[in-house]
Amino acid sequence: LPTAECLSTERRTAPQSGLKTIETPSLLLDETKLKRNIARLRERLGPMKVTLRPHLKTSKCIDVARLALISSRGPAMVSTLREAEYFAAHGVRDIVYGVGLAPDKLDRIGAIRRDLGADLAVILDSHEQARAVGSWVRKNGERIPVLIEIDCDGHRSGVLPHDPETLAAIGRTLVENGAELRGVLTHAGESYGLSTLEALERAAEQERSAAAGAATLLRESGLPCPIVSVGSTPTAHFARDFSGITEVRAGVFMFFDLVQAGIGVCTVDDIAISVLTSVIGHRPDKGRIIVDAGWMALSRDRGTARQAVDQGYGLVCDEKGRPLGDLIVSEANQEHGIITIRPGGKAPPCELPIGARLRILPNHACATAAEHAHYHVLGSDGEPRAIWKRISGW
Amino acid sequence: LPTAECLSTERRTAPQSGLKTIETPSLLLDETKLKRNIARLRERLGPMKVTLRPHLKTSKCIDVARLALISSRGPAMVSTLREAEYFAAHGVRDIVYGVGLAPDKLDRIGAIRRDLGADLAVILDSHEQARAVGSWVRKNGERIPVLIEIDCDGHRSGVLPHDPETLAAIGRTLVENGAELRGVLTHAGESYGLSTLEALERAAEQERSAAAGAATLLRESGLPCPIVSVGSTPTAHFARDFSGITEVRAGVFMFFDLVQAGIGVCTVDDIAISVLTSVIGHRPDKGRIIVDAGWMALSRDRGTARQAVDQGYGLVCDEKGRPLGDLIVSEANQEHGIITIRPGGKAPPCELPIGARLRILPNHACATAAEHAHYHVLGSDGEPRAIWKRISGW
Repeated sequence: LPTAECLSTERRTAPQSGLKTIETPSLLLDETKLKRNIARLRERLGPMKVTLRPHLKTSKCIDVARLALISSRGPAMVSTLREAEYFAAHGVRDIVYGVGLAPDKLDRIGAIRRDLGADLAVILDSHEQARAVGSWVRKNGERIPVLIEIDCDGHRSGVLPHDPETLAAIGRTLVENGAELRGVLTHAGESYGLSTLEALERAAEQERSAAAGAATLLRESGLPCPIVSVGSTPTAHFARDFSGITEVRAGVFMFFDLVQAGIGVCTVDDIAISVLTSVIGHRPDKGRIIVDAGWMALSRDRGTARQAVDQGYGLVCDEKGRPLGDLIVSEANQEHGIITIRPGGKAPPCELPIGARLRILPNHACATAAEHAHYHVLGSDGEPRAIWKRISGW
Repeated sequence: LPTAECLSTERRTAPQSGLKTIETPSLLLDETKLKRNIARLRERLGPMKVTLRPHLKTSKCIDVARLALISSRGPAMVSTLREAEYFAAHGVRDIVYGVGLAPDKLDRIGAIRRDLGADLAVILDSHEQARAVGSWVRKNGERIPVLIEIDCDGHRSGVLPHDPETLAAIGRTLVENGAELRGVLTHAGESYGLSTLEALERAAEQERSAAAGAATLLRESGLPCPIVSVGSTPTAHFARDFSGITEVRAGVFMFFDLVQAGIGVCTVDDIAISVLTSVIGHRPDKGRIIVDAGWMALSRDRGTARQAVDQGYGLVCDEKGRPLGDLIVSEANQEHGIITIRPGGKAPPCELPIGARLRILPNHACATAAEHAHYHVLGSDGEPRAIWKRISGW
């Protein structure tokens, strides 16, 4: 990693960077790193004959989505119907809503399909939900495509991949009622807790075999299964084999973050987003620097707490994004971050006076970005060149 | 506490509540509890001859502020300049911006005072910041009122209360440059970690004596100190003496939350906000219920993790807000909450089928409310009666 320059008087009186005009705290997005991260996963998946379905929940921004999607029409994944509506209104057509279906949402899903022209699919993992979709489809005379969620690693939800009765029962209820059984989907959420090549490759294979196996079971029951979808940022980068898989999903790969660096999917230098902040106080007696980015700007995510290197609420960099020794945000109040040297770490190479600008790299890009209404996009010269809006809410 | 009714078939076919029309996840605000919580602190402070300066960062909403402020003009406390601008535009006049000053923000602070007509004061704790204010005031020929932040408990920042040299040096720099030294302010942030009456009373007395002592030191140096400000929700409710204090600040007291219940400032039944959510899945083999409120709706705050009762990411209630046995949100992904029975706890008294509506009480009201763009306000009959908007950003 490049080392930080000292914030010397000379540098502080040098020609002013456009960064100086951005109020703190603010969310910065390095477009060069964003594009590099996207190209990396595309280049990896290209020869493996699987389609990339980016998860748009990380960015919630059409400008980022246009860089990440393989076509302006998709395919895409979303985590809320608000995202589905927003991206559909911007022309994205092939969308999967990736949170288990609440039947009350079917009317809104129907409206997105009908009024916004998006081919929006839902996921579910119970016969009860399949019956609700079936009733809605029969009552409304409209299709709803469905992917059955498979549980590959006990992370959260899904049908067990070795449960052919439930799989077939869900599939038959959908097909008999005129819904569309579009396939199966799984997510190796437990891969976020791994950090060795062997464990990551094993998680990817477990994810692959669960999805491919469930697809086989459905087809053996005479049911269709055109889409076989897997994905998480770690498994997308470490899978060695995608036999039986048609598409791979990933979200945080666009931005990366300290959790992904801790897993070993990226380096700290790959992280494309950061929070710009100002020094607002010092407590030398306690070894503290106070900044104006608290959990409202950084999020409360402590995803690195369980990793080998605990980054607190974020890793502290200079204004240009170069880590400053072992400084981390060790505590966060609503609008205050407390910066200290990590236990046993090195002091920063320079003074950080009142008003100095710093950047904080996030533990979890999805959570930190969600605290902000827009990205200040930095071009290849490191200067702000655009503001891209994000959406929020449900 | 009232016990939960079972979600029986009978009840589910009863006349439909307006709650059914609210999409999930959503933020609910019980207006009756809100008013009761505000009245409680006002009634406590009234005879103690101190003014209540509510912190508006908890609600970020003018409708809530109008109930909490003792007059439409204030006094009020804010945590961002965005809040200062918003509340000033709605007629609030007496505002303290309660985050240590970054000198780059002085132009914007000046504009709020000049263009929006608010008497906006800032806080600082260093001679460096006082000099920056002094330079700005001399250059612009406009006043900026300043409160010196005092550190009463090592929580975060502030001048040590027994450091008369620093206090007097900051005060003199301000006065000599034509800024306005308006007083001192301290915040017993460490009180959030307490839970016994004795410890809370001691924290309140420590907060009082630090502020009153610093005020005395300033006055002994011939400097003015009209305002002597203390406050946190726990100390505001447990202080026995406010001698030498002119005003008390508190924020979360309006809504309360599980952290405050754990400290002993309120009961669970006092908590005025909750997140409405829908059941979207079951994993009986793992004892899990999955809902559509994850950390995006609940926040990542785990403030009860350090308390005697760890509430996970929130305490689960039925649709009317009555706790359902020992169900808590034990894990949270972006848009998924995983509900389990707390270790050693009782099962809920009823089935929670797919589509059932639940309410989650938050660990930290400021953090959970910040994830939402508006409040669905429930009237005294428990029915939705209004939507109140929140602001966000900086």
